Amino acid sequence: MTSLDLTTDVVTLTRQLVDIESVSRHEKEIADAVEAALAAYDHLTLTRRGHTIVARTDLGRPERVVLAGHLDTVPVNANLPSRDDGTFLHGLGTCDMKSGDAVILKLAADLAEPNRDLTFVLYEAEEIEAVHNGLGKLAASDPDLLAADFAILMEPSNAGVEAGCQGTMRVEIRTTGERAHSARSWMGSNAIHKAGEVLRRLEAYEARTPVIDGLTYHEGLNAVFVAGGVAGNVVPDECVVTVNYRFAPDRTEVEAEKFLREFFDGYDITVVDTAPGALPGLDRPAARAFLEAVGGAPNPKFGWTDVARFTVLGIPAVNFGPGDPLFAHKQDERVPIADIEHCERVLRDWLEY
Amino acid sequence: MTSLDLTTDVVTLTRQLVDIESVSRHEKEIADAVEAALAAYDHLTLTRRGHTIVARTDLGRPERVVLAGHLDTVPVNANLPSRDDGTFLHGLGTCDMKSGDAVILKLAADLAEPNRDLTFVLYEAEEIEAVHNGLGKLAASDPDLLAADFAILMEPSNAGVEAGCQGTMRVEIRTTGERAHSARSWMGSNAIHKAGEVLRRLEAYEARTPVIDGLTYHEGLNAVFVAGGVAGNVVPDECVVTVNYRFAPDRTEVEAEKFLREFFDGYDITVVDTAPGALPGLDRPAARAFLEAVGGAPNPKFGWTDVARFTVLGIPAVNFGPGDPLFAHKQDERVPIADIEHCERVLRDWLEY
Repeated sequence: MTSLDLTTDVVTLTRQLVDIESVSRHEKEIADAVEAALAAYDHLTLTRRGHTIVARTDLGRPERVVLAGHLDTVPVNANLPSRDDGTFLHGLGTCDMKSGDAVILKLAADLAEPNRDLTFVLYEAEEIEAVHNGLGKLAASDPDLLAADFAILMEPSNAGVEAGCQGTMRVEIRTTGERAHSARSWMGSNAIHKAGEVLRRLEAYEARTPVIDGLTYHEGLNAVFVAGGVAGNVVPDECVVTVNYRFAPDRTEVEAEKFLREFFDGYDITVVDTAPGALPGLDRPAARAFLEAVGGAPNPKFGWTDVARFTVLGIPAVNFGPGDPLFAHKQDERVPIADIEHCERVLRDWLEY
Repeated sequence: MTSLDLTTDVVTLTRQLVDIESVSRHEKEIADAVEAALAAYDHLTLTRRGHTIVARTDLGRPERVVLAGHLDTVPVNANLPSRDDGTFLHGLGTCDMKSGDAVILKLAADLAEPNRDLTFVLYEAEEIEAVHNGLGKLAASDPDLLAADFAILMEPSNAGVEAGCQGTMRVEIRTTGERAHSARSWMGSNAIHKAGEVLRRLEAYEARTPVIDGLTYHEGLNAVFVAGGVAGNVVPDECVVTVNYRFAPDRTEVEAEKFLREFFDGYDITVVDTAPGALPGLDRPAARAFLEAVGGAPNPKFGWTDVARFTVLGIPAVNFGPGDPLFAHKQDERVPIADIEHCERVLRDWLEY
């Protein structure tokens, strides 16, 4: 079995994690290695669910903090094994998010007596359909294991704090008509032509940019797919525009759907996928204390992340991890070494006596 | 080998032809049967190219007429063998166009001394991509075999004369943008949204209806496909609208393309498929004589048919065949028995001394 050395430095540990291939649904090897490495530390209580590992201290501290990261990656794209150029680590998962995982594992190993109780979560299947998500499964099966006052999700955020996240909703807008041979098109009714008005409204859309806890969010409404057509000589009787609405966390899913139904008034709409946003929660004491420790101004998180799962459990949560999210899922994925070291140092300083 | 009996009546012969399955690219059996049946007649000179059979009289008449029909059908759809309910023949190919083929074969067998020289063409692969079309191949390889003063294509036309045909042109209209994550959509540019204006123009299109040789044509401009999208969370960078323009035969392909480029001014257009229309040519003496013999008013042909191939060769041509074209390619395909008998009688009267 591949083993991890938690006594090495955080950068070397990142490379060890990256070099264990762990595309979604193939996390057994990396989860086994994580479990075996953490089992060596008596100050941690381990629980495993599938390929999700939870390690907890239990020191009776008045406050508990979760540090979480997913172990899986998107598919390999000729970008393994890892490479170190002195400034960046390159390779699949360096940014999203094994450098964050390495910080979590280093802190788990080193902080035998932290100033707050800690819950470390390394979970499976974040990069695929939500139904497989290890953190989501854990929240459903063992909510007590996740109970905490504050959570830090170590997704890449340029080693700064990104607070909250926007929600996402996907809807299908279906126009219908009547088929006819295109040589006698006046016998039918063209469903694709009717979709023109849907696209026109999208083009005219102006994004809402609400300010929440001092952070300016930025919504988006986009056609992500359009499909219609029967044959090259047939007037089509159906066209489907798939629209993705990214909504600021001051809107619930119900409000988001209401907005879409009004925006596309007169059209047949079906919600096919939805996930709530997460309010930044920067007014909570644990969040404030963390922000003070980190320093610098927080930013809003535009993309949806698993912080929303903590919000659902009533736990304020932020994104704070090494790496630029724009490099996630790219073939030339990379992470600045300085980011990894910065995140480790900030958290260690905040959690150590 | 399945054999055809050309001494039987035209309705029975239609059923014999229908019961030889001959989906496009599988015409060997039916072409063999046609060739063998015609070989019995000394007044005909046969030529075979692939699965296309040409039979000609050579009596030195001052005028020559082509009678043509394709032997293939669209795929079987649980609509074989044929069935006779006393009023209609039912089954794949009854309408499109083995009843027309049966008329051709009956006349070829019976008219040993017609008043005009006759060229009978039974050809392969009309129902698939034009490159396989037996009549098109023949026009390219043996134009002399098709030389004539007038041509009758026995495609279904309700046993009346449908003159000329509209041209068809398919273009792809491509809009481009820039990809971005849909959570930060303002970093990109949505190509699907840009297609809205293309669809808006299509919806506002008003069809031209020119009158040619007394016949009113009716153009059409339709999106037949639309496709765009990369992933459910990505602002798409390309969208393609495929448009089919059906144009009246007073427009050439060059003029049709010019019209489309003006209509979609500002957009990137690629012509992917084109076929010229055919002028009705009802002013030509041979066409006039035929119209007089048939009686009744001719109609314009809206759909594209192989008559356009004769027009390219400088031969006036009309559609004249049994059956309602609306039943072509339908599972419940059928042909009125009276139509078959009418077409045979009209042509026999016109061609016999």
